[in-house]
Amino acid sequence: MAEEYKQGIVNRLKSIEGHVRGVQRMVDQDEYCIDIINQNLAVQRALEKVNRLILERHLQTCVNTAIQGDDPAERERIIAEILNVFEATTKM
Amino acid sequence: MAEEYKQGIVNRLKSIEGHVRGVQRMVDQDEYCIDIINQNLAVQRALEKVNRLILERHLQTCVNTAIQGDDPAERERIIAEILNVFEATTKM
Amino acid sequence: MAEEYKQGIVNRLKSIEGHVRGVQRMVDQDEYCIDIINQNLAVQRALEKVNRLILERHLQTCVNTAIQGDDPAERERIIAEILNVFEATTKM
Amino acid sequence: MAEEYKQGIVNRLKSIEGHVRGVQRMVDQDEYCIDIINQNLAVQRALEKVNRLILERHLQTCVNTAIQGDDPAERERIIAEILNVFEATTKM
Repeated sequence: MAEEYKQGIVNRLKSIEGHVRGVQRMVDQDEYCIDIINQNLAVQRALEKVNRLILERHLQTCVNTAIQGDDPAERERIIAEILNVFEATTKM
Repeated sequence: MAEEYKQGIVNRLKSIEGHVRGVQRMVDQDEYCIDIINQNLAVQRALEKVNRLILERHLQTCVNTAIQGDDPAERERIIAEILNVFEATTKM
Repeated sequence: MAEEYKQGIVNRLKSIEGHVRGVQRMVDQDEYCIDIINQNLAVQRALEKVNRLILERHLQTCVNTAIQGDDPAERERIIAEILNVFEATTKM
Repeated sequence: MAEEYKQGIVNRLKSIEGHVRGVQRMVDQDEYCIDIINQNLAVQRALEKVNRLILERHLQTCVNTAIQGDDPAERERIIAEILNVFEATTKM
């Protein structure tokens, strides 16, 4: 199960890698600026999807474990990390 | 303590409300487009800060309670809500 | 026409102001954190829509004028401003 | 000059591609979720920087040409494209 999940993430990242190579070709062949920007935006969207999947798992596993655990400092740390991700993804 | 926190949030929202009224005046007085846009962006930033504070408290209270509780459906719901907020704030 | 456009923007900002007051009430009445965050996100979305409308007009008027004008420094300035807005709205 | 600019963009994209491969390794080696998310966010930031550079050039060249040209439909199209990029990068 965890292996399947990991493979899913790696496959998405491989496809993102290929997409980035495709954008390099577009630049090389002088394609239209706006088309290149839109491809980059599609790559960013794909990375956001990967982050969402990782975050989902993180909340279901690490966060669950930490919050159910007895260590308040560990809980604090886990919450701070999630807020940092929020702050990095948005401009919160 | 909780009262102090609430008052802090309400004060920030009052200041945001005043800021929005200020932007209305700028539009009324035909101020420069880019200056108006920048004021709107400052308001958005202030709202993001409010959301960050509310989310922080949410993670420290409701989420803690739910995840430490015995109800797996409740835990699922809480995690789904957080992911939805992520999806709404970013384009994840 | 320009007056109609301005009135449209001001009306949107007035509605945003009311929305922010509504969020204050939600905080006052201890409504659920996630519901409050979602209302704030709706306000941010409404501000983005206002910015989009202002930017559209800016591109159709000021930018047109500047780029058709003879002053290269003015053109540079206008382009730098638009890039700054991009940088502020995204984290580009 | 244009060649140098193109090469600069391609080099950035090559480095992004390598970065994405690095993230794959992190997933493979079960590194900590939050560290992986942060690397993905760094990749997104790098793509935004590329988009900013392309957009800058686009504004300085294509947009300049179109807006100085005689074709109002072409001008409209160029402005619509820029607004679409805004809409895609933010949630405007």
